[in-house]
Amino acid sequence: MVESSDIVAASKRLLPVITRTPLISSPLLDEIAGGKVLLKAENLQRTGSFKMRGAYNLLSQLTPEQAALGVIAFSSGNHAQAVAAAGTLLGIETTIVMPEDAPTIKIENTRRLGGTTVLYDRYTEDRDSIARNIAADRGCEVVPPYDHEHIIAGQGTAGLEIAAQCSELGLTPDQALVCCSGGGLTAGCAISLCDAYPDIDVYAVEPEAFDDTARSLETGQRESIDVSAKSICDALQVATPGQITFEINKRLLAGATAVTDDDVREAIRFAFRHLKLVVEPGGAAALAAVLCARIETRDKVTVAVLSGGNIDAKMFASIQEG
Amino acid sequence: MVESSDIVAASKRLLPVITRTPLISSPLLDEIAGGKVLLKAENLQRTGSFKMRGAYNLLSQLTPEQAALGVIAFSSGNHAQAVAAAGTLLGIETTIVMPEDAPTIKIENTRRLGGTTVLYDRYTEDRDSIARNIAADRGCEVVPPYDHEHIIAGQGTAGLEIAAQCSELGLTPDQALVCCSGGGLTAGCAISLCDAYPDIDVYAVEPEAFDDTARSLETGQRESIDVSAKSICDALQVATPGQITFEINKRLLAGATAVTDDDVREAIRFAFRHLKLVVEPGGAAALAAVLCARIETRDKVTVAVLSGGNIDAKMFASIQEG
Repeated sequence: MVESSDIVAASKRLLPVITRTPLISSPLLDEIAGGKVLLKAENLQRTGSFKMRGAYNLLSQLTPEQAALGVIAFSSGNHAQAVAAAGTLLGIETTIVMPEDAPTIKIENTRRLGGTTVLYDRYTEDRDSIARNIAADRGCEVVPPYDHEHIIAGQGTAGLEIAAQCSELGLTPDQALVCCSGGGLTAGCAISLCDAYPDIDVYAVEPEAFDDTARSLETGQRESIDVSAKSICDALQVATPGQITFEINKRLLAGATAVTDDDVREAIRFAFRHLKLVVEPGGAAALAAVLCARIETRDKVTVAVLSGGNIDAKMFASIQEG
Repeated sequence: MVESSDIVAASKRLLPVITRTPLISSPLLDEIAGGKVLLKAENLQRTGSFKMRGAYNLLSQLTPEQAALGVIAFSSGNHAQAVAAAGTLLGIETTIVMPEDAPTIKIENTRRLGGTTVLYDRYTEDRDSIARNIAADRGCEVVPPYDHEHIIAGQGTAGLEIAAQCSELGLTPDQALVCCSGGGLTAGCAISLCDAYPDIDVYAVEPEAFDDTARSLETGQRESIDVSAKSICDALQVATPGQITFEINKRLLAGATAVTDDDVREAIRFAFRHLKLVVEPGGAAALAAVLCARIETRDKVTVAVLSGGNIDAKMFASIQEG
């Protein structure tokens, strides 16, 4: 299992390469929420999302023998860029299996950052088995996007920073909203935040069509949703929660909430217009939950993670026209 | 004259209302620059630009009698929003004279923040005299956009923060690039930065067509340029430097440099794509100078101010298509 001490150890490993992203507030957002809202701007993180935290934490702990063989990863795009960047920093060759309909910016950045990309069809092929086949051929490690202790510990460093930043501001968060796909960021932040604030309520925020964590929390076991579902949130599309991540989330989360594509569009527009931040659909889910009152924020201190900002200019423009 | 101590006093006045904006760095930008680049993200400041600093510093020092009469300001848009917001916070009525072709977002935000707007034609009317006529009628104060000691001291708090943040990072800046219009931000930052780092070179960055500060530095006296000139940088269009600001800038600046509209567009695209920040044309000038090598950055620590982020979605989209 992942402990708070693993997250503290990860934060030391990450110190030289990671940005301590700002915790941003906005008088207008506070007014809308009727409380205090603090946005952890992981869209400003190196590679444009929180994923660098977990990827570097895992890659930096490979043995020299493992590192020499290179690594394989599968990712909708943000983990891809992170693994490519971490690999380049550590001198490890990286091959990334990505859906062919991933945002162009994510595919291009993955290549620019030093990764070799292998594209697949999200609706007919299984990325997991493609990656595992390549790995078996080469005898090399797979870097999973969320279901690994080192990945979870790495993502948890975002929560560690949130706690330190809240304490610098003299604020105690009542709740934290985390954009949730496989659950790595949610689980990592739940560990570090519940350790710092035993009374905090941590919520997963999912797209309406991909509410696998919500369904799983309800039944107490990992449920699967229909993967042919569509959502504007390309980064938050998994069929079922991770095994390790769900064990943690089942134990620590206060619940989960869902946002619609329109909620997410409104959040992206708000971030452009009032925060001057570029947020991608999946990265805007937690902010959308605040803006669209999917969660009670009145008289509370709410932390919401902006988990990524990798969005194509065309989609961004069409959302702004909204 | 404005002293360092005035800026320290302003920073205490501003503490409860101002955001300590982050100093952002990017491995890719460092690579392009061949040195270390630190971006002071004043686009993330309350009201979307640094202007809140000077406006609040001035308005909060009005006498109760002056405050009761309300204030007039003239502004291309960022000062307008700042004066409106500061007025609302302090219970002071504000009337803002703005060009009718100012970005819609700036006019709308000024109204939303509580200001009354009076629009004029930038090419046939003189905003200064319109504002002064209204002020004479009402017997109230004009809040000028840059040429006032309290405004300059307020803007200088951005430089004070830069110095504190560089020291937290253990870095000594060799040079600072400041987007320059009338020269208030440049002068304020020059005072605080030259006080913290006697060897620093502070440069004004202007649009090519509005290089009045560069021309004035060359001759040693305030020169005027043709106001019918056009630039994408709506926030950086003045005919001549301020009287007080130029006295300071003449004494403290290492020089001035100019950027083209295309340089600025490239910087806005870079900020969207790689920094996940929304920057307006005038706010991107200093970053443009770095990206387009208008200034030597190799092996240096360079601070560049991103001075604002108020840009209409349509223009933003058309620049991204670029």
